[in-house]
Amino acid sequence: MSAATIRDRLNQLQAPIIVGVSGDSGSGKTTFSNGIRRLIGSDLVSTICTDGYHKEDRAQRQKSGRLPLDPAANQLDLLLCHLAELKQGNSINLPLYNHGTGQFDPPKLFSPTPIIVVEGLHVLYPQFLPFLDFSLYVDPERDVKWAWKWERDVKKRGHKAESLEQEMLQREAAFIRWIDAQKIDAHVVIQITQSQLETLIPARLVDPQVSPGYKVNLILEPTPYPLAGLSLPFDLAAMLDLNRPPFLLAAAPFRSWGRTAIAIQIDGNLSPQTIGELEQYIVGVTGIPIHDAMPSENYEKVSATHFAQLLITWRFLEQINQILLA
Amino acid sequence: MSAATIRDRLNQLQAPIIVGVSGDSGSGKTTFSNGIRRLIGSDLVSTICTDGYHKEDRAQRQKSGRLPLDPAANQLDLLLCHLAELKQGNSINLPLYNHGTGQFDPPKLFSPTPIIVVEGLHVLYPQFLPFLDFSLYVDPERDVKWAWKWERDVKKRGHKAESLEQEMLQREAAFIRWIDAQKIDAHVVIQITQSQLETLIPARLVDPQVSPGYKVNLILEPTPYPLAGLSLPFDLAAMLDLNRPPFLLAAAPFRSWGRTAIAIQIDGNLSPQTIGELEQYIVGVTGIPIHDAMPSENYEKVSATHFAQLLITWRFLEQINQILLA
Repeated sequence: MSAATIRDRLNQLQAPIIVGVSGDSGSGKTTFSNGIRRLIGSDLVSTICTDGYHKEDRAQRQKSGRLPLDPAANQLDLLLCHLAELKQGNSINLPLYNHGTGQFDPPKLFSPTPIIVVEGLHVLYPQFLPFLDFSLYVDPERDVKWAWKWERDVKKRGHKAESLEQEMLQREAAFIRWIDAQKIDAHVVIQITQSQLETLIPARLVDPQVSPGYKVNLILEPTPYPLAGLSLPFDLAAMLDLNRPPFLLAAAPFRSWGRTAIAIQIDGNLSPQTIGELEQYIVGVTGIPIHDAMPSENYEKVSATHFAQLLITWRFLEQINQILLA
Repeated sequence: MSAATIRDRLNQLQAPIIVGVSGDSGSGKTTFSNGIRRLIGSDLVSTICTDGYHKEDRAQRQKSGRLPLDPAANQLDLLLCHLAELKQGNSINLPLYNHGTGQFDPPKLFSPTPIIVVEGLHVLYPQFLPFLDFSLYVDPERDVKWAWKWERDVKKRGHKAESLEQEMLQREAAFIRWIDAQKIDAHVVIQITQSQLETLIPARLVDPQVSPGYKVNLILEPTPYPLAGLSLPFDLAAMLDLNRPPFLLAAAPFRSWGRTAIAIQIDGNLSPQTIGELEQYIVGVTGIPIHDAMPSENYEKVSATHFAQLLITWRFLEQINQILLA
């Protein structure tokens, strides 16, 4: 796959490539599919959020007590029809839920782009898998999920703290019952924990240089169609330099869920320069220039996340390679 | 420091550079100083083993019950004199202990080379530190130490298994009392554990691709005189390839023992090609060709060890840089 063809051939595809992204509410689905949007570009990639397929709005849910996590509380048959239409290259009337008002907005005509990212609570349910070319399951640990959900729903969406806490407690059983098993079918499972870099340090001493952040564990299904090498210019001498940020990088193949897989662990921070060089390398492979700059806010804090985004995007490009070669 | 000068300037040094390597008996002192010998060359580097400074041979020790770990059972005053002589550029009569016979061999005239590696149980004792330019403390975990000691003393040196086990039990208190505190003064502390790569794998399933091996943790004192970057051509795409060996690489700065330090963890295997490229890079910096090839036996098994050897050698070259600039 040469640098020029990936963009050209994506535009010539009869059927769009559909990427499914599932995981709990507030799990970071959008964050981890962002690498695909950023590095392949908004003109080729569009996103569908399946919250519009909920059967009830917020006021109705408060009366009925049903959780959106319950598949029966969602129009999954309609979602199935829409995925089939999109895969045929047809437009759909996309239902929309407004998290600000808690009500449904009028549906919007959605026309397929070469790549469609579908994000939602049930996107990796078995009936949808035949329409998905690539799939992510985002799986933050309990404490991380609670912190994020709080940040989003209370601080940004203005929900009441008391009702959120009650909802979260009610949701945990529902999450295990209806959501968690979807990870079995994902090409990439993304686990997020609090940084564990402190465990690298032999004595329990305060280290002002280890800043709080996230550790990302990826469980990937290997591709039979690898792309060329993705070289990270890794400066070993920098490991001997006290002023560099701490990091951990690990990979191990294993067998689980009846399949072979690779476990990758990323913790801490790589330099913005290293990440930038990697992105430019990926641009060289795709031939697609990056329009959106890496977000600079919280950059140090989430760079294990950014690095994971790049690896996920690379794995997605390998999947595209497989589709284009078919 | 240009490529040509490091060798030339080492040959012009008035005082030899002395490297102290300490740690328990059978801890792997020779293994971890081997990178310095291999990469700098046997014509520039010679090695002294301080076992010749024991006061008693094996038969005498069996009668007295004294352990070589006891500093009073060693001619440390003679070692001090010898280090002072060597630092002046003078030759010494090096006492020799023969591990095969358990007796002393006749002393041998030892003339200083530009770099002298001194390995032994008490080499980082405070009185020796003024003569040391660089120091390693090798610190395998208990189970690793026992396995190695058994391998060496019973299998290779023909000691009796029963007496070794009794000696090992007796030695543990002596080790803490007389040996272990030396790590406080080492430039590099080398901790060795069994591989912990299994902890990377989410489920406890047998993975035939994770082979047993060692994890090496380095605790390094950073140098104020870093050399140029030491670039590891790290293939990220290979992380997505099921056929690559598992690995872990991590680094974190921290404060301990009243100083700043860097903790580096290495586990698993890098490809022989990657290690080879790193060695060639180091050769390019030192201008010293490698005479001894990387030992091929057990190559897969110990490559965290080989990788650690390279990092230790690089840190030593930084120390040389500091000395040559002084």
